[in-house]
Amino acid sequence: MATHMDPDEFRRHGHEVVDWIADYWSGLHDRRVTPNDPPGTVTARLPATPPEYGEGFEQILADLDTVIAPGLTHWQHPGFFGYFPANTSAPSVLGDLVAAGLGVQGMLWATGPACTEVETVMLDWLAHLLDLPPRFRSTGPGGGVIQDSASSATLVATLAALHRASGGEWRMSGVTRRYRVYTSTQGHSSIEKAARLAGLGDDGVRAVEVDETLALSPKALRTALEADRAAGVVPALVVATIGTTSTTAIDPIPEIGEICREYGVWLHVDAAYAGAAAVCPEFRYTHSGLEYADSYCFDPHKWLLTGFDCDAFWVADRAELIEALSVLPEYLRNAATESGAVIDYRDWQVPLGRRFRALKLWFVLRWYGVEGLRAHIRSGVQLAAWFADRVTADERFEVAAPHPFSLVCFRLRAGDEASSELLTRVNATGRVYLTHTRVAGRYTLRLAVGSPLTTHRDVALAWQLIAELAGQDGPGHVDRDAV
Amino acid sequence: MATHMDPDEFRRHGHEVVDWIADYWSGLHDRRVTPNDPPGTVTARLPATPPEYGEGFEQILADLDTVIAPGLTHWQHPGFFGYFPANTSAPSVLGDLVAAGLGVQGMLWATGPACTEVETVMLDWLAHLLDLPPRFRSTGPGGGVIQDSASSATLVATLAALHRASGGEWRMSGVTRRYRVYTSTQGHSSIEKAARLAGLGDDGVRAVEVDETLALSPKALRTALEADRAAGVVPALVVATIGTTSTTAIDPIPEIGEICREYGVWLHVDAAYAGAAAVCPEFRYTHSGLEYADSYCFDPHKWLLTGFDCDAFWVADRAELIEALSVLPEYLRNAATESGAVIDYRDWQVPLGRRFRALKLWFVLRWYGVEGLRAHIRSGVQLAAWFADRVTADERFEVAAPHPFSLVCFRLRAGDEASSELLTRVNATGRVYLTHTRVAGRYTLRLAVGSPLTTHRDVALAWQLIAELAGQDGPGHVDRDAV
Repeated sequence: MATHMDPDEFRRHGHEVVDWIADYWSGLHDRRVTPNDPPGTVTARLPATPPEYGEGFEQILADLDTVIAPGLTHWQHPGFFGYFPANTSAPSVLGDLVAAGLGVQGMLWATGPACTEVETVMLDWLAHLLDLPPRFRSTGPGGGVIQDSASSATLVATLAALHRASGGEWRMSGVTRRYRVYTSTQGHSSIEKAARLAGLGDDGVRAVEVDETLALSPKALRTALEADRAAGVVPALVVATIGTTSTTAIDPIPEIGEICREYGVWLHVDAAYAGAAAVCPEFRYTHSGLEYADSYCFDPHKWLLTGFDCDAFWVADRAELIEALSVLPEYLRNAATESGAVIDYRDWQVPLGRRFRALKLWFVLRWYGVEGLRAHIRSGVQLAAWFADRVTADERFEVAAPHPFSLVCFRLRAGDEASSELLTRVNATGRVYLTHTRVAGRYTLRLAVGSPLTTHRDVALAWQLIAELAGQDGPGHVDRDAV
Repeated sequence: MATHMDPDEFRRHGHEVVDWIADYWSGLHDRRVTPNDPPGTVTARLPATPPEYGEGFEQILADLDTVIAPGLTHWQHPGFFGYFPANTSAPSVLGDLVAAGLGVQGMLWATGPACTEVETVMLDWLAHLLDLPPRFRSTGPGGGVIQDSASSATLVATLAALHRASGGEWRMSGVTRRYRVYTSTQGHSSIEKAARLAGLGDDGVRAVEVDETLALSPKALRTALEADRAAGVVPALVVATIGTTSTTAIDPIPEIGEICREYGVWLHVDAAYAGAAAVCPEFRYTHSGLEYADSYCFDPHKWLLTGFDCDAFWVADRAELIEALSVLPEYLRNAATESGAVIDYRDWQVPLGRRFRALKLWFVLRWYGVEGLRAHIRSGVQLAAWFADRVTADERFEVAAPHPFSLVCFRLRAGDEASSELLTRVNATGRVYLTHTRVAGRYTLRLAVGSPLTTHRDVALAWQLIAELAGQDGPGHVDRDAV
């Protein structure tokens, strides 16, 4: 007999796991942010084959401390400033736990009415929270859906755009003409990946020039569209970004939107990280022009306290998306679908199956309330501004780009090598973790604030460490033991 | 201030949520499998906008009973026999809980060394468990990765196949020739969807005829390949299935593999549901010929006690997959990646980000052990066989297709209308839930066993209900109150 864990055992072990997580969070401050071990270290701690007979739960739990935790980059650590944050929060974890326990697979409305309807309502709540244009609400012709990531949102936007650009022919006949996708030189790598997956090839993406703030130049976009049209290429999609990955630049959506309308091109707006800021009225200006967008997304899993994966994606006309993606075999037919009165989210995404991810959003939005979410965003922005002030005040450093949100890009005036070496030294301490980018070709450090555990003390520690390791005369003259 | 839930509050509320889930599982028997409410019922229970200020956790938890649970199709219910099962288990839920608490985003080895290495080892464990050919192990040129679903596995296989078929040109130039994908008429709808997404169009898929067991006909495949080649079409991919969605038919992989080798076509084998059976030596025969496959997948989230989402996908040559999918922007560059000594799983999948899904697999494989997993599979097969015997012994019914695994396809001899009406009546009781398909055009009911809670008693109850509702003279003469 398979030895299933009975409900009482689950209760006991479940409490143990909850306590383990609470202890893990409480102790994060004392851990290195990143491990210091070479590749293969974790592998060497694991047997090569699974056990023949089941093991006790105590042993499994104990191995979290000996096998797993020492081998992790701790994304929830208060000293984690790398990439964009992938925040989670206790309410999100609990919402996700309920979803795991229910084990619902919400591919169709019929396979989980509550799974589908809560998702629709949560996306309407988020649209309200960010004050998105009415056309994105489910009460109109549009609507929202949870994708796993902004990459997948870009992909489905690309597919819907091809469907529209082809006049519907794409569905049956595929890529039979030269279609093109436009984004700025600062657009995310997922745009190139989506175009490649969709069969346009890397040549199917045109990287449009940016201005001095690293925002897309509408003039350059227009020039590109004209040139391509003249060459027989069909412009299908423009991806504009609110908060680029490299530096959080904001593309001028109103001007881009006008051009897209003029040329009949699908406009997708990617606000993966920065979109969350629009929960605060003072950041709504960053979303100006969104009424032109055919689709829009942001990631509650980046800066809105919701665990990965949770990308919120909206379309202005859900019929176009569904037409592009639906395939209906007999074994998925059901009365609810055929009534036309329900949403089947499988037709809004690449995979068929789906988890009940709306539950964690529901938990987060209710636990924090609108004011709690705003406080989290404002805290991140303030901490980043404080850090940028320190950088500006130190003549060895310079801020490399505008920092409207919670990311600061900075570098040593001494040059690329010094900046790169500084990053290595800072990360080697294990106390903070930064990543890098290149801004106008120059090596640049990135500090992104986001973890709910990160306080002023942690950002101040990061600055202290950076300032010390940079040395008086560049980063070669510091006693690392002094940090 | 954002009011984050502190570790002690998390501990308390976490225990409450664990207890709620334990109670939910214990009480599943007493619930209807599916709700009986019209679309919009759950929506009507929710406010139209999020709360301005945070709510107490007690209220959120209480609403699980009033808002969520009554509106669900209960996939873990012992009377859920619809679709394919999407099993979870207590150890899986706990592994997933740890993953949510850690909040690691494992897009690169560097962003979560343990996340990456445990995944690689777990896929090697699964390969060992199913006795997959050595070429799929990470110790050779191949390796495994977790995808969200078999749909996504089919998509990345399609992309890698296009990369190979084009001699590499596809990456840069896209779909510039007429490529084609082959599967049987019984192939899953995700194959058509993947071809459409990849820019081949629905016309890019050829549905090959099947034999009397509903398995792909190698002869028909060869004919199709020849005809297409002669017409200037480039055959790119054959998708063979072990356990088709409709009836669990098994395509003849050895013969198909020989043909794929001869024509230089990528062979992807989709064993989404039935692959799990190969943990038992007596079912390994179903995987015969897998040494020809370029890629293979099965879903531990279907029949191996691991919560959705967890599709296990392997390639024989990881370099081809990585070449097809990799895009490397500056902000993702790091020393570990450039050393070539690590796996960056972002290059093995469509999205960039990824959760630590290997943890739930690790928990499941260790808790159950090989013998525990085998017992679960055997239990499902035996229960299905028992049910099929009842169907066969009742002259009103007939079994519609072979049932090598835990799915039984059956129907009333009285015809499509009677069978369809029976399904409606059975599901209306709320005590069991079945879905349907069409076999050779005829309406057919499907009963799939899989939940760890399902015992002989539940299958016997299902049969009793079906037999009673079918009536003596067809399904029109039964007093529903008597059931």
